[in-house]
Amino acid sequence: MLKGGAQVRYDPLTGEWITMASHRNDRTFMPPADQDPLAPTAPGGFPTEIAEAGYDVVVFENRFPALSPRNGGEPGFVDGDPLWPTQPANGRTEVVCFSSAPQGSFGSLTAHRARTVIEAWADRTAELGRQPGVEHVFVFENRGKEIGVTLPHPHGQIYAFPFVPPKAARMLSMASDFATRTGKNLFREILDAEHRAGTRIVATSRHWTAYVPAAARWPVEVHLAPHRDVPDLPALTDAERDDLARIYLDVLGRLDRYFPGPEPLPYIAGVHQAPVRAGRDLFRLHLQVFSVLRAPGKLKYLAGVESAMASWISDTTPERIADRLRSC
Amino acid sequence: MLKGGAQVRYDPLTGEWITMASHRNDRTFMPPADQDPLAPTAPGGFPTEIAEAGYDVVVFENRFPALSPRNGGEPGFVDGDPLWPTQPANGRTEVVCFSSAPQGSFGSLTAHRARTVIEAWADRTAELGRQPGVEHVFVFENRGKEIGVTLPHPHGQIYAFPFVPPKAARMLSMASDFATRTGKNLFREILDAEHRAGTRIVATSRHWTAYVPAAARWPVEVHLAPHRDVPDLPALTDAERDDLARIYLDVLGRLDRYFPGPEPLPYIAGVHQAPVRAGRDLFRLHLQVFSVLRAPGKLKYLAGVESAMASWISDTTPERIADRLRSC
Repeated sequence: MLKGGAQVRYDPLTGEWITMASHRNDRTFMPPADQDPLAPTAPGGFPTEIAEAGYDVVVFENRFPALSPRNGGEPGFVDGDPLWPTQPANGRTEVVCFSSAPQGSFGSLTAHRARTVIEAWADRTAELGRQPGVEHVFVFENRGKEIGVTLPHPHGQIYAFPFVPPKAARMLSMASDFATRTGKNLFREILDAEHRAGTRIVATSRHWTAYVPAAARWPVEVHLAPHRDVPDLPALTDAERDDLARIYLDVLGRLDRYFPGPEPLPYIAGVHQAPVRAGRDLFRLHLQVFSVLRAPGKLKYLAGVESAMASWISDTTPERIADRLRSC
Repeated sequence: MLKGGAQVRYDPLTGEWITMASHRNDRTFMPPADQDPLAPTAPGGFPTEIAEAGYDVVVFENRFPALSPRNGGEPGFVDGDPLWPTQPANGRTEVVCFSSAPQGSFGSLTAHRARTVIEAWADRTAELGRQPGVEHVFVFENRGKEIGVTLPHPHGQIYAFPFVPPKAARMLSMASDFATRTGKNLFREILDAEHRAGTRIVATSRHWTAYVPAAARWPVEVHLAPHRDVPDLPALTDAERDDLARIYLDVLGRLDRYFPGPEPLPYIAGVHQAPVRAGRDLFRLHLQVFSVLRAPGKLKYLAGVESAMASWISDTTPERIADRLRSC
């Protein structure tokens, strides 16, 4: 039973921690325009999350946090059985508002504003990584009701996990095996190989390269990697941050032109960073941007093979995606 | 480049094989009722996949197969780089039609017909496991356009993979570690622990138990496990197959009554079987049935945290799901 708030439970079949946050089922879902909780509070108007007349970028705690230091309780076991360890759902879930304007998305920001958001992402990564019990900081931003965005106001989120989440743990384990076998950094080797092949490069700049990975699993997928080995956003120089703002906006613009038609492409963008304490010499910062749209009006559903067996089937090829993105 | 048909590519970041089947993007999508390709061909009518006047259960190869022995080519590397091994997309993808009736689902079958489908699943598992290059047979059936079903005719699918897919490989690795550490079978220990706790049991019969797993990640999720240690469907006795037909129909009925309202619950049901060649003494057959519906009209989307980081957040608890399913 859950006492004292949300809980994470260990799944012995997969070795993964599952967060149980049953209070989140009542969260705000697509409110009317005059009740946008991420807008500045208007004089005499609906009290929003932000008591300011206007803002550039604002970060605050999610009102329906999955992970929070206020989730009390002690480590234990479900029904007292050692098969099922539990922890309190410690950590943080923050909302990053990109603009006080109620519509738009990251791609409609100016380069200057985009740079400010990246600064906020880096600052919060550093700050959250210093919180007790935080093992991993994950920054992401989504667009589109097709992938479950529940508020149209342009915003992203940050999750500070009390464990290293499965995708990060998996990549770290692969990088560790690779280093043991070859003495080399897996992420660096992949970037070098993409440069050598050249067939999947979408855009390059002084400090960054955007490419479609050779085994891309989503209908549209781009990775952005820095040219220098860095573990996370706080390790980027000012010049690298400036450059990231420009190339990320360039990639988002290409995504918007990827399919014909007026509907913007729904996408998920995640910043993959080294865990706070583990593998910081092995991991290498990169961004992953992908879409579930496989054709105008047609979604890639995660059905039996993907959802139940975690095996991906792509309806296209990485080279086709890259060709199309280069010509956009 | 893809020559000679679909290909599977190794993702060095995750160690997973991704199937690239670019011809599938043109597959049939929700055809009109008079063009149901899974109906028996009517005299003088639209030529369907099945040239029979009527049928009980029919199995045939998917017309848009992701995996097929006709996918030619040889193992190699993307752009000649050893980071990215490739294989031809060998294997099979089959369609199992449950009934010649154009509407309905597994849950609307009689126990007798359901038993026939289970017999077909077991027969195809045995037969496909004997095909050269097949490493794993995955039987599944989905219902609902919400999870991407592209044909309303009641049917399921079978994928015979040329590799052990990620979820099966992960469970096997966990079971192997557990056996090394404790000398015990992980799946058996979990079933025994669920019986001891009792709090998540949904239904039991002579040969099977249905329970909500203690770390359930989906809004509605049930596992069905046999009482005897068996690796796969072909290993079930006649009595265990009879009993599976009954308890699976019972569970599907409970799922249909889970939320109020007339809309049937969309679900994905997968049969987790031991790989063809690996870990057959460690793995234990079980069925997993789950839904992406978290409330009437509200889907659980796999957004940033799930899709990009593979970390699951549940909006409910396993005990609540089990309470509700028991009372349905």
